[in-house]
Amino acid sequence: MRAVDLIRKKRDSGVHTRPEIDFLIAGYTRGEIPDYQMAAWLMAAWLRGLNRAELSFLTEAMLHSGQVLDHSSIPGKKVDKHSTGGVGDKTSLILAPIVAAGGLTVPMISGRGLGHTGGTLDKLEAIPGFNTALSLEQFHEVLRICGMGLIGQTSEIAPADKKIYALRDATSTVESIGLICASIMSKKLAEGIDALVLDVKTGSGAFMKREEDAVALAEVMVETGERMGKKVVALITDMNQPLGRMAGHSNEIAECLEVLSGGGPDDLRDLSIELSAWMFVLGEKTADVAAGRQLAKRMIASGQAKVKFRQSIALQGGDPRVVEDPERLPQPRALVDVSSSSAGFITATNCEQFGIALAILGGGREKKEDQIDPAVGLEFHCRIGDCVKKGQPLVTIHYNCDEKLEEAKMLIAESFDIETAPREIPELIHRVILPEWLPEGLPEGLAEQPPE
Amino acid sequence: MRAVDLIRKKRDSGVHTRPEIDFLIAGYTRGEIPDYQMAAWLMAAWLRGLNRAELSFLTEAMLHSGQVLDHSSIPGKKVDKHSTGGVGDKTSLILAPIVAAGGLTVPMISGRGLGHTGGTLDKLEAIPGFNTALSLEQFHEVLRICGMGLIGQTSEIAPADKKIYALRDATSTVESIGLICASIMSKKLAEGIDALVLDVKTGSGAFMKREEDAVALAEVMVETGERMGKKVVALITDMNQPLGRMAGHSNEIAECLEVLSGGGPDDLRDLSIELSAWMFVLGEKTADVAAGRQLAKRMIASGQAKVKFRQSIALQGGDPRVVEDPERLPQPRALVDVSSSSAGFITATNCEQFGIALAILGGGREKKEDQIDPAVGLEFHCRIGDCVKKGQPLVTIHYNCDEKLEEAKMLIAESFDIETAPREIPELIHRVILPEWLPEGLPEGLAEQPPE
Repeated sequence: MRAVDLIRKKRDSGVHTRPEIDFLIAGYTRGEIPDYQMAAWLMAAWLRGLNRAELSFLTEAMLHSGQVLDHSSIPGKKVDKHSTGGVGDKTSLILAPIVAAGGLTVPMISGRGLGHTGGTLDKLEAIPGFNTALSLEQFHEVLRICGMGLIGQTSEIAPADKKIYALRDATSTVESIGLICASIMSKKLAEGIDALVLDVKTGSGAFMKREEDAVALAEVMVETGERMGKKVVALITDMNQPLGRMAGHSNEIAECLEVLSGGGPDDLRDLSIELSAWMFVLGEKTADVAAGRQLAKRMIASGQAKVKFRQSIALQGGDPRVVEDPERLPQPRALVDVSSSSAGFITATNCEQFGIALAILGGGREKKEDQIDPAVGLEFHCRIGDCVKKGQPLVTIHYNCDEKLEEAKMLIAESFDIETAPREIPELIHRVILPEWLPEGLPEGLAEQPPE
Repeated sequence: MRAVDLIRKKRDSGVHTRPEIDFLIAGYTRGEIPDYQMAAWLMAAWLRGLNRAELSFLTEAMLHSGQVLDHSSIPGKKVDKHSTGGVGDKTSLILAPIVAAGGLTVPMISGRGLGHTGGTLDKLEAIPGFNTALSLEQFHEVLRICGMGLIGQTSEIAPADKKIYALRDATSTVESIGLICASIMSKKLAEGIDALVLDVKTGSGAFMKREEDAVALAEVMVETGERMGKKVVALITDMNQPLGRMAGHSNEIAECLEVLSGGGPDDLRDLSIELSAWMFVLGEKTADVAAGRQLAKRMIASGQAKVKFRQSIALQGGDPRVVEDPERLPQPRALVDVSSSSAGFITATNCEQFGIALAILGGGREKKEDQIDPAVGLEFHCRIGDCVKKGQPLVTIHYNCDEKLEEAKMLIAESFDIETAPREIPELIHRVILPEWLPEGLPEGLAEQPPE
């Protein structure tokens, strides 16, 4: 087998066999196939597409390019959630404690923020001392003790994905549903999970701006998971405005603690409970989603989820006192408001721009090498559908440095559409993508649609 | 400007501007753009295509990646011919002496054989001592003295093409009409020519098996030449069977000498005269093709073309005595016939297979590094349309080594289609592709179609 022939095959719309995909991925991971051949193949695959079978071969080859974790010595199901990312998207830090408190194991390998999106690892590192770089042995031990662990991708996990992702970034072959699916699923399945809940964002702050693209990605991920013997469900959720009131690092941790204390904004709490409920269902803790929601709410109300988060922070080297005293998180030097320049109804936001403004202020990355300032953040006072007066504060900026402050203020102010009449308010949860096994394998209540 | 954005643009079917193409080619030639980005761009260009304007920008950028020769101190027009290659395709060594003898300058930079096709440089090197690796100064001097020179591509000529061609070979992005056009035209125009006659082969022994592909390539090359201010005409010629009776190196040189001596096979002589005639027209030596043919025939009949070839061999370090005594060329150890296994009419040949059989015997290259045995060759006794008896010799193999002889014999025998009734005999010259300037710029007689 030769790489040049496989490139030609995909170029000419051919369909790869499993051995062909294995040859490409193993050869590339070992450095036997050079970057330029993989780059040509990636572009051919981007333009010609990969069918469902090819996708599962690719995912599996990438998964097995490294170590697949084995937590089978820990009793019970291992369940994770993955989100395609957005602005203020912090549900991981709420649902992991809820689901671990509820008796499942959540082995979460997360990423860092890039561009307009935040990353779970960066948010955790706002907690003084929190170590996201555990070894795989330490990770297993943390999971065994408290049922949740939060680390970054290590060199042992799906090395093919790491190498291919860097190449895709440099060759404009990122935005392919097939390649995105293989990248996400290979990393997530390497966690050694039984089930996965996908939160596929759509809207102005998501990678998939159009709902049909989000649905297409969700469908291939659910089917790929199914082909690989895992239980996978996807929720298509709204990212036309930030999730919750906070974007940034310290202030998102603080907001998560609010939700775990029984408060917090409705949208963030509802989505966290909904995702937790699906994790309980797939992890066979509850028979249906309604029971899953009840269990999730009970874990918050009883304080068990908050205790779990405190335990997790302590186990990973962080200062657990932030749970009672969020002021211990890095604080900004100053605050300033961005106010409305007109009166009317907020009808839409350019949500991606909020993320860019945050990055400009130092609370995000433009390039991978950039350092993040955890104290910088945005606090949103209004949501789509709200009626605002002229001069009313829309956003409070938490900042440390005056540089680029005006640019950020401008970007934020521009990102609200204010009109004289209200428009439709987007639903928080647009759709649920269920796998084919569901109708047979689980009770009827499970196929129930999410609440309003 | 960033390469990653240009890759994205082409991926999304965008049309590049001249500065964009210049940035890509100059950056890649200097090593600032890595192979993997160029590979991704090449695949995107292969699949999305390049329009005529992009092609002329690309050709020009590749042309100017190195030195463009300047022979303006030599009086008269500089004219060359380029063929897309085939089996037994040796017209360069006949027409260059004819056209130089007729008073034009032919600065020919040629290539080597690869796969089933032969290369002019390899054929010349069958002449003991012949040096195809002249410096550009020596080349100019040879041209000044005798009006023809035959060398290989040097590192000074279109280095972008050399680098891109190697990458295309490794990334399955060779067979693109646009990329082939830019590769050929950038090298040929770097010769410092005023005009170019293209011999675009079609049929079972050509790269372009289908006539429509050959015509499409010819059209873009003619238009690209025109956009760059050069006179270009293309002849679509037949490669459904070997050109002439000989394939190999020594024996092709010998066959060229036969034609230059007034003999040789009809098809080879006719095509060489036809191509020479067009070179005379574009080089403004004759007013029309008919007059060009007369001049070409006169150069042969008078012996002037043969004298010119002898002078050229001597100037480039070769043994000029081969002209009178072709036995001085490397000779094979043994000959063996491949005979017909049935009686009937030859209706077609798998011409590419003849080239592969020749390569197997050592008279061609499977890989670039392979050495060529110049004494090995094939002598064809029959052509399409001929009636053959069972047991009649079809081909005589000139060989030096028994290894793979049986394999080659089998391939050759299989490559003749013999049927009970004759079929149509392919025309030698299928079409002439004329540039748009022709009807205005040149007299009417020029547009005349070639003779039967």
